[in-house]
Amino acid sequence: MMDIIFYNASQIVTVASGGARLKRGAEMRDIGLIEDGAVAIKNGRIEYVGPSDGIDISKAERSINAFGKTILPGFVDSHTHLVFAGAREEEFARRIAGATYAEIAAAGGGINTTVKATRAASKIELTEYALHRLDSCLGFGSTTVEIKSGYGLDFENEIKMLEVINELRDLHVIEIVPTFLGAHTIPFDYKDRREEYLQLIMERMLPEVARRRLAQYCDVFVEKGAFTLEEARGIFMRARELGMKARVHADQITPGGGAELAGDVFAASADHLDHISDDGIARMRDSGTIATLLPGVSLFLGEEYPDARRLIEAGLAVAIATDANPGSCTSENIQLMMSLAATQMRMTMEEIITAVTLNAAAALDRSDALGSIEEGKQADLLMFDTPNYQRIIYHFGVNHLNTVVKAGRVVMEKSYASA
Amino acid sequence: MMDIIFYNASQIVTVASGGARLKRGAEMRDIGLIEDGAVAIKNGRIEYVGPSDGIDISKAERSINAFGKTILPGFVDSHTHLVFAGAREEEFARRIAGATYAEIAAAGGGINTTVKATRAASKIELTEYALHRLDSCLGFGSTTVEIKSGYGLDFENEIKMLEVINELRDLHVIEIVPTFLGAHTIPFDYKDRREEYLQLIMERMLPEVARRRLAQYCDVFVEKGAFTLEEARGIFMRARELGMKARVHADQITPGGGAELAGDVFAASADHLDHISDDGIARMRDSGTIATLLPGVSLFLGEEYPDARRLIEAGLAVAIATDANPGSCTSENIQLMMSLAATQMRMTMEEIITAVTLNAAAALDRSDALGSIEEGKQADLLMFDTPNYQRIIYHFGVNHLNTVVKAGRVVMEKSYASA
Repeated sequence: MMDIIFYNASQIVTVASGGARLKRGAEMRDIGLIEDGAVAIKNGRIEYVGPSDGIDISKAERSINAFGKTILPGFVDSHTHLVFAGAREEEFARRIAGATYAEIAAAGGGINTTVKATRAASKIELTEYALHRLDSCLGFGSTTVEIKSGYGLDFENEIKMLEVINELRDLHVIEIVPTFLGAHTIPFDYKDRREEYLQLIMERMLPEVARRRLAQYCDVFVEKGAFTLEEARGIFMRARELGMKARVHADQITPGGGAELAGDVFAASADHLDHISDDGIARMRDSGTIATLLPGVSLFLGEEYPDARRLIEAGLAVAIATDANPGSCTSENIQLMMSLAATQMRMTMEEIITAVTLNAAAALDRSDALGSIEEGKQADLLMFDTPNYQRIIYHFGVNHLNTVVKAGRVVMEKSYASA
Repeated sequence: MMDIIFYNASQIVTVASGGARLKRGAEMRDIGLIEDGAVAIKNGRIEYVGPSDGIDISKAERSINAFGKTILPGFVDSHTHLVFAGAREEEFARRIAGATYAEIAAAGGGINTTVKATRAASKIELTEYALHRLDSCLGFGSTTVEIKSGYGLDFENEIKMLEVINELRDLHVIEIVPTFLGAHTIPFDYKDRREEYLQLIMERMLPEVARRRLAQYCDVFVEKGAFTLEEARGIFMRARELGMKARVHADQITPGGGAELAGDVFAASADHLDHISDDGIARMRDSGTIATLLPGVSLFLGEEYPDARRLIEAGLAVAIATDANPGSCTSENIQLMMSLAATQMRMTMEEIITAVTLNAAAALDRSDALGSIEEGKQADLLMFDTPNYQRIIYHFGVNHLNTVVKAGRVVMEKSYASA
C-alpha cells in the first residue's frame, strides 16, 4: 500500500540524474520529462515515478488527480540570511531617493542596522520572525533552505543565531541547512581590531560551532571591504580541521579571486560570481564546486546580472538561490528568481529548473537524497496549476503553486473554499 | 450607522488631492499620510478618514482593527490586455534559448499566435480565462482595471472582445474600463491591404463601438511596424467625432512622435514612453496627459527601463501599470511593478503610490471618484499586513495584501484558518 499517489499529471519534471550528484553545462537541459505521469510515495520516499498507466491508484491511502498540472521536485534555496531582526525599508527608501551607500553607512546604516537589531533581539523574537519568512519560502515551493548566521558578529550573538537556526529545524517543515558566517564583515565594534576579530573567529567561534555541531558549513565573504583571500583561506583551513565544509561569497563586487579560492578549498558552492575570472571558472570545474547565482540581488540593487551563459557554456554546474536578506535582496520568492534567470540571464527553462533543484541540492551536498524525483529519493514534490513547466517561469510574479509534499507528507495545499 | 470602520491603522496613505485630478512632478511625493488612522464607510462611500480617536467604533455594522497594518487606496491598473486566448510559453522558451523575434514572427508567432487563438475562441472561453486573470489582479490589490481589445483585428472579433470585456463588468467585482484597440497592429490577413484595414477601423469598427458604447477609449499603437502618426491622427479624429477619448501606445521602441500626438489630441494617457522627446514631454504637460510607465515590459523583454525621473522632474503626472499581456509582460502583479519602479526606475516610494492610485485613476478619467481616500469618494481600500507603506515595495515579490474593499464591500480577506 502506498501513502500517496499523484496520477494523470500533465507533466512530471523528474530532473533525474541517475545517481550523478550534479548536472554541468549542457547536461542542465536534461530534465527527464514524463508526460501523463504518476508518482507513488511510501514512508517518505519515492517508490515509483513513470507513466500513469503503470500505476494502480486503488493501492494508495490517498490518490491525487494531477490532471492539467505539473509536478516538480521541491525547490532548494541554497543561500539565505533569513534569521535577522530590524527593518530597513526606510533606509531603502532613502537609497532610492538618492542617498549613496556610503551616506547610509556613515549614518550607521547598512548591515550595521541589522547587526545591532539582531544582537538586541531575543532568541524567541528571532525565531518568530524567521518562522514567518520560512512560511513565505514554503509558499513559493522551497522545501529545503540554507540559512547563514552573520548578523551577530560577536561570540555570543553568532552562537545565538546558530542556535535559532538549529531550533527552526524542529519548528518548521522546511529542511534547514545551517551555515556559519561569522566572517560576513568586520563588525563596527572591531573596526580598529581586525586581527582580534579574526582570532575570535578562529579560536573561539569556529571551535564552539564545531563542538556543538551548530553548522554544516563555514562561509566567508571574500571582497574588498570584507575579508581578503588570505584571511579567508586561513578561516577555511581552520574550519576544515574542525570538520566543516566551505562555501564562499565570491567575486560579487570586484574580481577578487574568490572563485579560485573556492576551487582550491573544494567549496561546496561559490556564490554571486558577478566578476568571476576564467581561471576561477576552471578551478571550480575541477573541484566540482557549484556556481550559485543570485539574480534577486542584481534586481534589488539595480545592478548588472552575473553572466550565467558564460558559466554554463564553460561547463559549470549552476544553481540559483534567493539570497533573501534585509539589505541586498528582500524576497523569499524563488519562483521570481527563476523568471529573472530567464529574462535577465537568458538561462533556458530547463537550465533554470535544474538550477533550483538538483544543482541547488548539490550546493548543500544533499543531491543524494534531494533535488530530483527518482525512486529511493526523499519525496519532496511540488504540484503546480500549470499544464507545463515553462508557464511557471513565463507567467511571472504570480504564484501557481497548488500543493507541497515534504518528505512524503502534504504540508501545503491550495484552499478552494476561500477561492 | 456606518457600514464598516477600519481603526487603529498604523498608517493610512490617503493620496488626498483636495479635488485635483492628478499630481504632477514633485506633487507626487505628497501622499497625505495619517498615523493611527481610521476610515469609515457608508453606502459604498468614504464618510470619514482621519485620526482613530475621531471615531466611535460602536457606530458601525462591522469594525476592523487595523493595528500594525497599512491602508491604501485600491490600486488602478490602467493598461492591460487581459482578454485573450492561446499560450505563448513555448515561444517565450524559444526566445530565451536564442531565437530572434523575427524568427518567431516568421514561424507565425508573436502577436499572430494570440490573434489566431483569440479569433478561434468562443466568448465563454475568453470570459473564463479573463475571470481567472482578474482574480489574479484582485489578489494583488487592483480594484479597477482597464482592458483593451486588439487581438481580434477584424470586425467580428474586435466586437467579440469588447462584448466580453463589457460582460466581465457584471461578472467580476473589479471595475473594468474598456478600450478599443483595433489599431494594435496590421493583422497578417491584411498585410497587403493596409488601407483596407484602416478603412475597416474608421468606417465599420469605430461606429459600431460608439453606437453600442462598447468602449470608453480608442487606443492606437504608434510605432514603426504598427501605425504611423498620420494614421493614428486620423483614427483619433474619427474616434473623437464619435465621442471616444484617446489613449496612445507611444515611443516604446523608437522616438516616433507618439507623445506629441497624445498631447495634440488631449489623450487621457500616453503609455510606454521609453523614447519620448523633450517636445513630447512639453505637449503632454500642456494637455494634462498622464505618462503611464510599464516597467514589467522592460523586465520581461530584458530591455532598458523608461526614464521616470526625467518625466517626473519635467513636471509630468506619472502612472504605473502592468500591461498584462501574453507577449511582452505576462504578469498581473501590480505590486511587483511598484518594486520595479523603485529598484529600476528610482521612483520614490511616495511617487510610486501616487502612480498606482490617483494618477492611474486620472489616466482613466476616474480620479473624481477613485484613487484616493477622501470623504465622498468611492470606498476602494486595501489593507496590508505591513506597519508602513514602504515595506510593501521593499519586501518585494511577496504579497502582503490582507483585505480588499471595493465600493464599500469587503471582496477579499486573507484566510487565517488555512494559515
